This record gives sequence, structure tokens and C-alpha cells, in this order.
Amino acid sequence: MSGGLVTLGETMGLVAADGIGSLEFARGFAFGIGGAESNVAIGVARLGGSATWIGRVGRDATGDLIERRLRGEGVRATVIRDSSFTGLMVKHRRTAGLLHVDYHRAGSAGSRLVPADVPAAAVRSAGILHVTGITPALSGTARETVFHAVEAAHAAGVTVSVDVNYRSKLWSSYDAAPVLRDLVTRAQVVFAGPDEAELVLGPGGNPAERLAGLGPSEVVIKDGARGCTALIEGERHAVKALEVTVVDPVGAGDAFVAGYLADRLAGAGPAARLGTAIAAGAFAVTFPGDCEGLPTRPDLESLLSATDNVSR
Amino acid sequence: MSGGLVTLGETMGLVAADGIGSLEFARGFAFGIGGAESNVAIGVARLGGSATWIGRVGRDATGDLIERRLRGEGVRATVIRDSSFTGLMVKHRRTAGLLHVDYHRAGSAGSRLVPADVPAAAVRSAGILHVTGITPALSGTARETVFHAVEAAHAAGVTVSVDVNYRSKLWSSYDAAPVLRDLVTRAQVVFAGPDEAELVLGPGGNPAERLAGLGPSEVVIKDGARGCTALIEGERHAVKALEVTVVDPVGAGDAFVAGYLADRLAGAGPAARLGTAIAAGAFAVTFPGDCEGLPTRPDLESLLSATDNVSR
Amino acid sequence: MSGGLVTLGETMGLVAADGIGSLEFARGFAFGIGGAESNVAIGVARLGGSATWIGRVGRDATGDLIERRLRGEGVRATVIRDSSFTGLMVKHRRTAGLLHVDYHRAGSAGSRLVPADVPAAAVRSAGILHVTGITPALSGTARETVFHAVEAAHAAGVTVSVDVNYRSKLWSSYDAAPVLRDLVTRAQVVFAGPDEAELVLGPGGNPAERLAGLGPSEVVIKDGARGCTALIEGERHAVKALEVTVVDPVGAGDAFVAGYLADRLAGAGPAARLGTAIAAGAFAVTFPGDCEGLPTRPDLESLLSATDNVSR
Amino acid sequence: MSGGLVTLGETMGLVAADGIGSLEFARGFAFGIGGAESNVAIGVARLGGSATWIGRVGRDATGDLIERRLRGEGVRATVIRDSSFTGLMVKHRRTAGLLHVDYHRAGSAGSRLVPADVPAAAVRSAGILHVTGITPALSGTARETVFHAVEAAHAAGVTVSVDVNYRSKLWSSYDAAPVLRDLVTRAQVVFAGPDEAELVLGPGGNPAERLAGLGPSEVVIKDGARGCTALIEGERHAVKALEVTVVDPVGAGDAFVAGYLADRLAGAGPAARLGTAIAAGAFAVTFPGDCEGLPTRPDLESLLSATDNVSR
Amino acid sequence: MSGGLVTLGETMGLVAADGIGSLEFARGFAFGIGGAESNVAIGVARLGGSATWIGRVGRDATGDLIERRLRGEGVRATVIRDSSFTGLMVKHRRTAGLLHVDYHRAGSAGSRLVPADVPAAAVRSAGILHVTGITPALSGTARETVFHAVEAAHAAGVTVSVDVNYRSKLWSSYDAAPVLRDLVTRAQVVFAGPDEAELVLGPGGNPAERLAGLGPSEVVIKDGARGCTALIEGERHAVKALEVTVVDPVGAGDAFVAGYLADRLAGAGPAARLGTAIAAGAFAVTFPGDCEGLPTRPDLESLLSATDNVSR
Amino acid sequence: MSGGLVTLGETMGLVAADGIGSLEFARGFAFGIGGAESNVAIGVARLGGSATWIGRVGRDATGDLIERRLRGEGVRATVIRDSSFTGLMVKHRRTAGLLHVDYHRAGSAGSRLVPADVPAAAVRSAGILHVTGITPALSGTARETVFHAVEAAHAAGVTVSVDVNYRSKLWSSYDAAPVLRDLVTRAQVVFAGPDEAELVLGPGGNPAERLAGLGPSEVVIKDGARGCTALIEGERHAVKALEVTVVDPVGAGDAFVAGYLADRLAGAGPAARLGTAIAAGAFAVTFPGDCEGLPTRPDLESLLSATDNVSR
Repeated sequence: MSGGLVTLGETMGLVAADGIGSLEFARGFAFGIGGAESNVAIGVARLGGSATWIGRVGRDATGDLIERRLRGEGVRATVIRDSSFTGLMVKHRRTAGLLHVDYHRAGSAGSRLVPADVPAAAVRSAGILHVTGITPALSGTARETVFHAVEAAHAAGVTVSVDVNYRSKLWSSYDAAPVLRDLVTRAQVVFAGPDEAELVLGPGGNPAERLAGLGPSEVVIKDGARGCTALIEGERHAVKALEVTVVDPVGAGDAFVAGYLADRLAGAGPAARLGTAIAAGAFAVTFPGDCEGLPTRPDLESLLSATDNVSR
Repeated sequence: MSGGLVTLGETMGLVAADGIGSLEFARGFAFGIGGAESNVAIGVARLGGSATWIGRVGRDATGDLIERRLRGEGVRATVIRDSSFTGLMVKHRRTAGLLHVDYHRAGSAGSRLVPADVPAAAVRSAGILHVTGITPALSGTARETVFHAVEAAHAAGVTVSVDVNYRSKLWSSYDAAPVLRDLVTRAQVVFAGPDEAELVLGPGGNPAERLAGLGPSEVVIKDGARGCTALIEGERHAVKALEVTVVDPVGAGDAFVAGYLADRLAGAGPAARLGTAIAAGAFAVTFPGDCEGLPTRPDLESLLSATDNVSR
Repeated sequence: MSGGLVTLGETMGLVAADGIGSLEFARGFAFGIGGAESNVAIGVARLGGSATWIGRVGRDATGDLIERRLRGEGVRATVIRDSSFTGLMVKHRRTAGLLHVDYHRAGSAGSRLVPADVPAAAVRSAGILHVTGITPALSGTARETVFHAVEAAHAAGVTVSVDVNYRSKLWSSYDAAPVLRDLVTRAQVVFAGPDEAELVLGPGGNPAERLAGLGPSEVVIKDGARGCTALIEGERHAVKALEVTVVDPVGAGDAFVAGYLADRLAGAGPAARLGTAIAAGAFAVTFPGDCEGLPTRPDLESLLSATDNVSR
Repeated sequence: MSGGLVTLGETMGLVAADGIGSLEFARGFAFGIGGAESNVAIGVARLGGSATWIGRVGRDATGDLIERRLRGEGVRATVIRDSSFTGLMVKHRRTAGLLHVDYHRAGSAGSRLVPADVPAAAVRSAGILHVTGITPALSGTARETVFHAVEAAHAAGVTVSVDVNYRSKLWSSYDAAPVLRDLVTRAQVVFAGPDEAELVLGPGGNPAERLAGLGPSEVVIKDGARGCTALIEGERHAVKALEVTVVDPVGAGDAFVAGYLADRLAGAGPAARLGTAIAAGAFAVTFPGDCEGLPTRPDLESLLSATDNVSR
Repeated sequence: MSGGLVTLGETMGLVAADGIGSLEFARGFAFGIGGAESNVAIGVARLGGSATWIGRVGRDATGDLIERRLRGEGVRATVIRDSSFTGLMVKHRRTAGLLHVDYHRAGSAGSRLVPADVPAAAVRSAGILHVTGITPALSGTARETVFHAVEAAHAAGVTVSVDVNYRSKLWSSYDAAPVLRDLVTRAQVVFAGPDEAELVLGPGGNPAERLAGLGPSEVVIKDGARGCTALIEGERHAVKALEVTVVDPVGAGDAFVAGYLADRLAGAGPAARLGTAIAAGAFAVTFPGDCEGLPTRPDLESLLSATDNVSR
Repeated sequence: MSGGLVTLGETMGLVAADGIGSLEFARGFAFGIGGAESNVAIGVARLGGSATWIGRVGRDATGDLIERRLRGEGVRATVIRDSSFTGLMVKHRRTAGLLHVDYHRAGSAGSRLVPADVPAAAVRSAGILHVTGITPALSGTARETVFHAVEAAHAAGVTVSVDVNYRSKLWSSYDAAPVLRDLVTRAQVVFAGPDEAELVLGPGGNPAERLAGLGPSEVVIKDGARGCTALIEGERHAVKALEVTVVDPVGAGDAFVAGYLADRLAGAGPAARLGTAIAAGAFAVTFPGDCEGLPTRPDLESLLSATDNVSR
């Protein structure tokens, strides 16, 4: 589908304990899927855009689940079946307000991406190529794959979007900063948190301006409960967060990115994109789970116009 | 049972998703029952009054459930088994604070009430006949049945109570205002929200006074989180809402009406009735479900006297 | 998709009680979807064929669920959103071996099909048009729609498949036999049970031969735990049922049809088609639910080759 | 209600683990009620008879549950609220076929029955007074209460029915045989297993004949999977058990007794009573739980006429 | 294990309804264990201390569960199997904020403690003997056992800790004040609420000072949401409560005591002990259940350092 | 603990879908633990023996669960926390009789065992060192560790037990036969299936005799539903399997081994050992889950003496 989002990365199974407490006392578990890039793809599809996800999963039931869920969401998926296992996350709440996530992913199928996995035609016909700073941390070939896709996008004149998404555990034996800086330098659209901006650039100064100094023409700083600021084509923007009851903050950043990019693909201006991003992030935190709570357009309308809390 | 509440209407099965999210991701569902008039009947019975409910259900398991639940609550039920199906509601939460209810009820058994369904003796011996503005919207014969019962009550000198309960979806092909106004005109006791008062009377003025101008000697304006105001035998009343954590606002209005009418049947004065109404409504919103959370007298005492939150 | 299955009919929400016992004592419920024609479409898709389903659902969450589930299964769906509600089924087990299903469907969206709902191009490019004897019982316009689609298939030289699927409750005010006989007469492929053959033709004689006498060149008699017999291009076939533990027999007939038609679309001969049909039906009864248990090709291999019951 | 069943005894809360395995690994529990006499009362009510239960429960939520459940079943209950706690049973499956039940009942409210708890008018107007050999084992005053009620029935010419129901654990510090023999001697209708007959009478001989020798004119020997034999007004009867899948055998004996007594109250002859008893017992074992699976008349018809296992 | 905590008392099964509402509408139940003294023992073990619990349970599955859970927590347990049943608690929420607990414990195994149950060697080698004011209320022999253990501790120079833990229902036929005062007099460390101090000493004055006047050198006044005050070796302390979302306040007092005593056993000073006590109590209220939510040292660090609410 | 079982290997988290069907339609999941060697250790402990398990787990919640479960079972565990993740299994039923297990274990903590992980003192004081053919397949260092432990046992005169336990997937890039033959050669006690004997020795001949020819003095051939044969100190034995309803066959082989070794440690003769092995295996298959269903001595008595299926 010409002009849509194309993204690549690792999607894992997500085993989440019901209720509050250690695994031993959990009464039941849900089994979902999660991954920053597929979350963005699902988010864009729910908001009416077209989206393609590229990645590897194992020849196991978790891999089957990932394929079916993406198809159910209307995301085109180029899924390569790999001889390693599909990575898994195990999530539980230690208290009402304290989530804990373990990653069982080292050596997983998803980390074994290679440049040849990326269909050249898909990138060429994309409206936006979106990548994150997670994928280059997964393996050497995954890193190559990200940069290979970015080069292919440049060659085809396709906009490159990067969510810095620094995960300290994944980079433990490798230096993240130069890689992430390199990635930012090659992007037109960049999303980062204030801490991530410091990680890439060292401390000091205005994060949006400094990241924009590396090249990107659109820099959006996600600042959680405080909202966001942005420097877009030289113009500053700031949007406050909406007040909602937080059920599960995981996935909110991806919802935010999906909101921004879906509106950008649909031709909306910077203010509209940021408003949609903020609303999508707010909606996502009111749900348990990673991608199940990504909003549709009517969901966002309901959120914004709710005068009472029953829709009949 | 001489002197109790008699009411009639449609009661449906209520399929409610556990947790938050779309039907697809719900992990389980509860199957209860709901209906404005049977909610009021159950509420009155739980508060120690006698209550009778009249209505039609299908010859299906949902109809069986409705009969058993009402009997378990101590409500006398005149249940006519109809060849059409029992109506169903499907409820889910789109976010932590956003409920969505679908009605699968057009042409249901409950909508096929006819005047002959109403036992004349039951109305004659009632303390109060209570009807709502929902039933006249269900079908032509249901509308006739409501007005037939009201006439029978008038003839027997029985007090008529009306909860305006405007549901826009049910009236889509019909004009609600003249019917609801007609109903209010024939009542001694009227319950309405501020918007419903405007719907019946057009905009402007004090809702309680204007409704009282149509005839009723007791008008109670339910105003949700703001509490209620009333004009009872010419005297003004206002009671603030209690501060409670809202779990599910559906059914709070019915609990309020049950509290008021149970106290009225028990001979309590206006201030006591309104206090019980407010407390019952507050109790009901702290529960998921329509009628499962209707309070008993000890429940109301616990709510009002709770100094700590554990009763041993 | 040229050469695939095209089908049309009503798909409903399916609320199924966990465990055994009346609705009142059920601890939880599942919410799925079901419909003879969409079951066949899903079954064909799972077996690697292409499938299209055409039908109406309401503008409600159940309608959303139906759309998403079909998409997740890889079925192309032409879903018309109707102002009436999506039909619902309520299923529970009265004992370990006694299922009970109520239909809340009269006047539902699904019954309001009209001939214009059927995309002419879809029928023209189909490999098989499959219809059932359920749809003509739903309403006058639904009946017209079925015959309209059959005529369109004839005009385009597309094979017509009919599953007689007689449901006594739906025909209570109408005479089923002439309509079903009319449908059989216009089909090339017919599926029926022995009782259904008698219903269409009156008692006596060999069901397959007598149905074939009406015109169809392929008649398959599904006979549950006894297996099936068939008369295909003048040749007799008989296949025994597989011995499996029956968990839920609902949906087995649709799985059987899907197995036969998927193989027929793939160019397999009569014996292979019937073997796949028998295996698919056997697989489906080992699952609770209507369409969740429809098998894939690897599932059928596992079933047939299972020497122990753990696959690692 | 003149002419119905009147019974008295202890009803307890029943906490039953889901699935198979020790309490530690159970994923959830159900909370029901159970008691031999209230099971019979519920069974009679479901089969269309009138039934009254008399007993003590604590001033606790379990006592509330017992009251509500009996009312929902249409059983008239004379429930005395006692200062002791309501007894509890804890049930789990050690394997698929091995149930284990613990009784937490010593000193419970239910064991504190006194003769004054029995309303004289209820016994006088009964069609049958039914008691079991469990109640005399609970306490000295419970024993007195049973014999007091039996005397009252005799005085009023009311038929006395006794289910021997020997529970070894309850009699550990007391000799059961003379008490149970005394009870049998005062009954017109007696139910016992072969082992119970030996316990009462010592080993040897035909159990039905020997029990009848003590006085009762109707003796029914329940022999589980083998069916039953009986000596009724001097005539011998034998009925085979039905073949069903056993899910939970607890409560089958009570269902059997309810079937026999309901038919007896309705004026049916011995063969019909025994047939209903056998069918009711067969139905009950196909359910988990004590009284939730007691059948209605339509349930028995379904069981007996089931030619396929789906009723639509 | 030399130098650890030794405690004795009653531990019961705890049947807790899921969700909100009466037992009848609960969808499921959890089965855990609870008891003030074993909660403290588990709490100390989780915080890295050694702990021993002494008590009686029945020869039933609930008794098995108690043994296994304590062993899983690393608590040494001297469990005497008694011929009476294990006591049970039944817990449900009447509303989101109103818990109700019933005790089914009169005459239970746990109430039948006798002095000979206490291994002399265990007390002699203890760092702290901890008892509560619950045990003396259970029975005459249980009261003797507590005082016997306290005397044994005195004789061996072991510190005695007392949590006053007044439970009005248990003392209904007996005067609590002199017994509890006697116990306080014999302790070095005392925990009490403000109301409990008044109960022991009569109204008026500063609770910590007045309790210290009876002899203890460490008095800690637990004041729920207001935090705590203490008089330790003549020095005053006050610590505010932490702000957390209260899920279930049951067990918070035991967590507090465990935090204080674990730190005292580990040689920490008064301020550290009180800080740990406050944090442990805060952690425990964010969990449903009695002892499942007792924190480990890493849990307390997470609670205190949480800057965002996801730990990865 | 002198004279007990010592074993080593990998224990994983086990995520198991409720009910039947693909992960997508599963309504919930359980989270347990599993591993052939820890299953045997738990089995021995439940049968009254002492048992020690040695292995590596990750620094994650799954690792915590493994530690707590083993402790709760009374197994001594030498648990090394590794920087890699704890391996996970994902299990679901494709049909009522078809289990599917995926292993997410490549590179897991458990595969990173090294010889230094094995405490020399534990092996020296063991009654039996038990290893399986799974561990040598996990990694080079795991293979060294197994042979290192076997050598240490030989040096100390400790009996070595080997369960061949061939898992084809683990050996895909390596030749299993010579390694497993080498292991068998060094054992006194060997357990194998008929297929495993062929794998080690090539086809032909009597499996027990041929394995005994490699050196072991006790060879037990587990043959599933057919029972077992053995050659023990030169004497032939054969025991039939018990007839039970199979719920989940996974873990039955480990239960069998635990039964044999527990009895051997307790000094029982060959016939008794094999009888216990057969009974323990039979008991385990009636449970879902890997180690939750391992029997205690009373469980085995219940299984063998069950005349009815309710124990009270």
C-alpha cells in the first residue's frame, strides 16, 4: 500500500500476570504480544493508516499468535520464520503501582534479522520508514538491517522516523550513544525522552534543539505525565498531557508515536499531529497490555468529548 | 402484598466483559440481568419493602435466569413467557472510565407487553405504581400498557410514580416529548434529570418547579455527582452526593429511585427519603453490575458509618 | 481472489457459559462468533484456500468483533453495517453431554440481507459459491438474496454448493421443503443429513441418489458419528468417522463442508475431499466453540499421525 | 403449603476448588451450599413440588448465601440465625477421579438445632416429613429435634421419610447403630445403601426385607452404579442405573431421594417414583456441585430422550 | 536457628471472594492463609531474618496448605496436627472500600494449643519471642500456652514482644483488659493502636508513655494512615505514613511489626526499625491478601526509590 | 542430608494455556515450573525421601518462582543465579488429546551449568546421584558438568542413576548416541524407553538386556501405557500399567523414576520399587501440569484402594 508506514523490529510474546503480586500467587495470566515497532504499526492501522511490519519469529505457537494478531489488526506483516525461539516477556505487578517486566529474548528469532529480510519494494513505496533504537541493540545483523533499511529509504526519498527508545539492559556490553546518534543523524523525524536526548548528546541545553542540530527537521520530546514539546520545521510546540487514570504505562510511548505518524501520513499539520499523539498516549495508559489499548479514531473522540462516562 | 411497589417493564440479560478493552481481548464475561423497573423492584425489596414486577421474557435460558434472580431477591414476579427472544445487553469498558452498552432488544419479548398482562388486582392493592419513560418507547402495545396501568392506578386511588428515563436511541423514529409529558402529567411522584426536564418542557426555568407545574406533588431532580434537588408538597429540598469511588455508574439512578420509594412506602418523610435515595445511589456506583450492588439497610448503615474500611 | 470460495449469510455473537450448568451458576462466559457460512469460510481459509464472506452486522461491538475475527482468519469480508442489532446466541451445557443454544436473532442485522449486498464481481470470479438453507429462512429479502446470488453464479458458470442445514425453529411460520428443494435443484454440490434429505424429498429410498436425481452432480450425506456417504459424478463413496472424544459437536458439519470444498478448490479428487472432510469434522468436535477449532493442514496431519499425544 | 415436603438439618457453605490438584495449586474456587436435607428440598422444588427446610445458620455471609439460594430455588426456609458460625465444607480433587471433602463443622450453628426450632404448624400440614441420619449425629439437641419432629408427624398422621445417610466421621464418639435403627423403626419410607442396612441391622440377609421388618412400608436400597431395589407395600422392585459420564457423585443420593419423594407427593405409583429417582440421580452426577445440578422435569425429559446432544 | 524470631498462634485458611459484591455474585474465590503471628513470621523471613512458628492445624487439606506455604516462605514451623478442623476466614468486599471478614474458628484446631506444644529449646535459643493478644482469647489452654512461653523466654533471658491486637469478637464472653495488661507488663517490646492502649489502661494520657509505664522499654503506637509514634529506651520517635493506594488494609499491622522486629534482630537502631516498619506496612496495603504482599528488602527499595512505575 | 537423592539440570518456567485451542483463543494461562530432574527431586521429596537439586536460573521472577516452589516442596536447592534468562516452556492443547510444547530455552541460564556449580560435599554424601540425557544436550559446559558429577559420584562410591530422556530437538546439531551410551556405561541404574534403547544401541534385541550389557546392574524400561519391564541384579521383572484417565502425560516418566528411586533410597526391594514407580506414573497422568501432580504416599494409597471415588 503506497504511502503507508513501514517498520521493522522484534515482536515478542507477552505473558502478563493477573492482579497484583508475585508469579507464585497470580491466579491467572494473559498471553499477548508486544514490541515497540509493531505497537506503532498497529496504532497507525487503528487510526486508519496503512502499516507494514517486518520481522522474525520462531516456528512456535507464539510466532503463530504474532502473525494472527497483526493480520487481525490489518497490519501487513512480512514475517520470517526462524529456527530460534520467539522472545518472551513476563510481566507482573509487585504492587498496585509497580510493574516488573523480564525479557527472555537473548538469541531469540527476533534478534536474528538480516538485511535481506527487508523487501526493497516495501521500503521504496513507503510514506515513512520507522525504526527504533531497540533493534540495533539486538545483534550485529539486526543493527546492519536497520541501517540498511534507512539507506534504502534515503535512496528512495522516503522519510525516516526514529524513536530513540534507549533500553539500558540491551546495551550492557556495547556503547549505545554513538549508534543512536548515528541513527538520529539519518532521520527526518525523531522521538526521544529528555533522558534519551542526554544519552545521545551528553548533558546540557534544550533537548529538541540539540537533536535538531544533528539534522532531523522534526524532533518531538515525549515527557510522560508532563506532555510533550517539539521543534518542527523550526517552530516550537508544547502540548500538555491529558489527565487520566493510569492503569499500565507500558505502550504509551508507542501510542504517542503512532498518533503522530498516522496524522503525518494523513497530511495533518504539526499541531494536529501532536494533539493526536498526546490523546493516543493518554488512551493507551488507561488499558492493561501493550497494544490491545491502542485507540481508534472514535476512541479518541470518546476520550476527548466524554461528558459522562457511559456511551449508549 | 398490600401496599407495596408494583412496576412493569422490560428486563434483559446483561453480558458484561471482565476488565478493560474490546470484546476481542476480554478474558471472560459475566451474565446478569438488568432493567430499570426490575432494578427498582429489587432495590425496594432489599430495603425491606414488598415489590412486584410485571413483564415478558422469552422461552429461553435468559428468561429462566430473570425469573430465578427476581425470586431470589424476594420480588414477586408476574412473568409472561413470550415466543420472541429475551432482549440482551452487551457491556464493555473501552477504557478504565468509559463504559459502552449495546442493546440487542428490537422486537424482543419484553417489548411485546400488552394491557392484559397487568393483573388488575395487583395494581389495585399496590402502595405505589412505578413506571418509566423507557417502556412507552418499546412498542405501541407497551405504550398502551403503561397508560392502561396508570389509569387503573388512578381508578383505585393508587399513587403513580414516574421516572422519565429518556433513552434517545429507543425514540429515534418517534417523538418522545409529548408522550413523556403526558406521563408526567398523570403522576404524583416524578424523577428526572435536568436534561430530561428540558426534553419534556423545553429549555428554561427551574426544572423541579416546571415539572411540578404539570401536576405532580413530588418532583425529584437527580443530578448525578452533584446530588439532588426536590420540590415535595411545595417545599424545596437539596441533598449533596456522597463522595465515593465510582466503579460503575449504571444502575445508580434506579438505586436512587428505589431508596426514595422504599422509604416512602415505609412512611418516612421527604428528608429521610432523599437521604436514603442519595445513599443508595452512592452505594450502587461502587459495584460493577446493574442490580447486584443494590444496598440493604445494613449496607447503607455501613456506608454512612464507615470509620475504617474493614468490618469484622 | 480468483477461484476461491464466496459465501453469504448471518454471523452472530456467541455467548458460551464455562463449565456445566444453568446460566445462574456459570462462573464465566466466552464471547465468540458463529454462523454456518462464515464457519465454512474460516475453515477453507485455515486449510489454505481463499474465502470471501458477505453479510450484515449491527453498528455495535459484536459487529466489530465479527469483522476483526474474520480478518484475523484471513477471510475477505464484505460487511455491511445495518441499523438493527447483531444477532446473538447464548449457549450452555445442561449436563456434561447436553448442550442448549438459544437464538436472539429475530429481526437482527444479519437477517436483513438484500440482493444489492452481493458484489457481482465477487461472485463472478469465485471458484465456488456456497450457500446454506439457513439464510432463506431468515427473511424474504434474505431468501431473495440467496437465489439472486445463485443465479449470478449460474450466469458466470460458477459452481454452486448448498448445505441444506435445516433449522426447524427458523421455518416455523413458513414451509421449508419447497424452498430447500428449489435450492438443491440449482446446485452442483449438495451436503445434507439423512433427515434433511427426507425433509426435502419425502421419506424412502437412498438419500444420495434421490438428491442427485434433482440435478446435483455431487451429493454428500453427512451422518455424524457414522461417517459419510456420497454420490460424486455417478460414483458411490463411503468413509467412516474417526474415533475422537467429543467435546462440542456444534460446528462439525461446517468443518466437514470446509474440508470438502477446500480440497475441491485445490483440485483434489473425490476420495481425498471426503477424507479431508471427515478429518476436519473429527478435529472440530474435540474443541469447544464454533469456529475456533477449525483445523489447519498441520492440525489434520497431527490428528491422523498421532502415535503419542504430545508433540514437542 | 399443605401437602408438601418438610425437612430439617444442617446446610453448610461449600468451597470447591476448580480443576484437579491440591489447594495450593488451585487456580480458583467456587462457593456454593450443600446439605443432604436442603438438597432434597431443592430437588423436590425443582421437580415441581413444594418444600420447606428448617435449620440454623450463623450471622455471617455464608448464612446469607444459604437463605438467598433457598429462596431463589423456591424452597420455603425457616432459617434461625445462631451466634455460632455456619459450617463449611472444603472440596478438591486429588486426581481426575478422586474427590476429597473436609468438614469444618464441629460446634457450628447448624449443629445447634433445638426442638423449639421446628414450627408445629409446618409439620402438621406437611405431606411428608423427611429426615436423615446425619442430623442426630450433630449434637444432643439436634438428635432430640429430629425425634421431636418425627413424633409431631406421627401425632398428625404425616408420613415420615428417613434417609439413613451414615457418616462415619460424625459418629466417632457415639454409637450410630441404635439411633439409626430407632429412626428407621419410626419411618414409613426408608432409603439406605446396602452397607447402611448392615450397619443398622448387622450383616446377612436381604437389606430391603430386613429393614422393612423394622416397620417401614417402603424401603428403597440405593446401590449407586448398579441402580436400586425396593420393597414397597410388600412388592419387590428393581431399576437399573442409567449410563452417564460421572463428573461429581456427591449429591446423587439426595437427587435420588428428591425424585422419589417428589413423585410420591404428586401421587405417582412406585414404578414411576423409582424411575424418576434413578433419572434424577443420573442427572445429578453429570454436574459438579451439590445442589446446582438437581434436575427439573424438562431436564429429565432431555436426559431420557436425548438422541443427539444438542437441543436448539 | 539461634537468634531468630519465635512465635505461636492460630493460622487459618482464608477464602477471599474475587471482585466486589456478596458471595452469591462472586465469580471466583482465592484460598490463602492468614494469622497475625504467622504473618509476622513470614514478614521477618522475607526481610532476611530467621523465623519459627508454632501452632495447631487440623488433619485436613487446609492444614496441609498452611504447612506448605510456611515452608515455601522459609519459615520453620512446628505444626501439631489436631483432631479438630482448621479454622477458616471468609472475606468479601461489600463495596470497593468496605471489606467484610467472617471467622469460622470457634473450637478449631488452632484454638487448642497447650503449653506442651511449645518446644523449650526453640524458645531458649530465640532472639525474640513474639506473641499477640489474639491467642489468649482463643481458649483457656491457649491463654496458658502464651503465658507459659513468655515465662520460658524470661527464664532464658529472651526478649518478649507483644502485639496487643485486640479483637472484640473473640473476647465477648471474657474480660480482655486484665489479660492484655498482664501480657504487656511482661514484654520488653509492645505494639498497640491508640484504641488498644485505652482498652488496656483506660482513657487519657499519652498512649506510648502510659504503656511504657507498665514495664516495656520499647512501645510502638501504630496509627494507620497517620504513621506511628514510639517511646524506645526513653526516647520519642514519630514517623509519617507513606502515601500509597490502599488495596487491602488487612495484614498491614503485621507487616509493620515484622519490619520492626526483622530490623531489631538484624541489629538496626530505633529509627531504622521504624522506617522499615512504616515501609513494610505501606507495601502490604497495596496488595490483596494477608501475607502474600509482605515485602522483601528489594521490594522496599523499589517502593522507596520508585521514580517511575515500571522496573525493567 | 546424607543418603538422599542429588540431581542437577535445567528447570524452566512453564506457561500452560487453560482449556483447548490455540494461544489466541485461550482464556487464561497457568505459570508453573518444570524440568525432568527437579520433577524427580520433588517426586522423591513428596514420597518422604530427601532430595537436592543443583542448577542455574536467571535473575528474574521466573527464577524466584523456581526457588520458592522447590523450597515449598522441601527440596534442597543449590540455585546459581545467572545473567542469562530463565528458560520458558509454552504449552497448549491443540485438541482434547493433543498437547503441544514449545521450548524457549536456547542460551538460557539453565544451559550454562559449569562443573564448579556442583558442590563436592553434596555429591559425596548422596545416596544416589541422578542425571538425565537432557543436560548433556544443553551446552558443552553442561555436558562437562554431568560427567564431572558422575565422576565425583564414582570416586565417592555413590550410586549413579541415569534417565536416558532423549529429546530430539536438543540434539539437532550434535550426535546424541555416543554421549548417551557413554552416560549409560557409567551408571548403576538406568531408565529408558524402548525407542531410547534403540537410539543408544542400534536396533534389535531385548532392550533391558542390551543396556545391562553396557554395565548397569539395574535397567528399567518404561513403556507408557503398557507398563514396564526391568532387569535388576540379573532378575527379570514386568509390571502392567494401571488403568487411569489420562489428563496430561507430561511428567509421568519423571514420576515413575521418582517412585523407583524413592523406594530404593528407603531400602525397598525391586518389586516394591517397580510397583511404586508404576503407581506414581499413573497418578501423575491424572493431573494437568508437570510436577504439581506428583503423589505423596497417602495419594498412592488412595489410588490403589479407591473403591468409590469420594474420600471423606
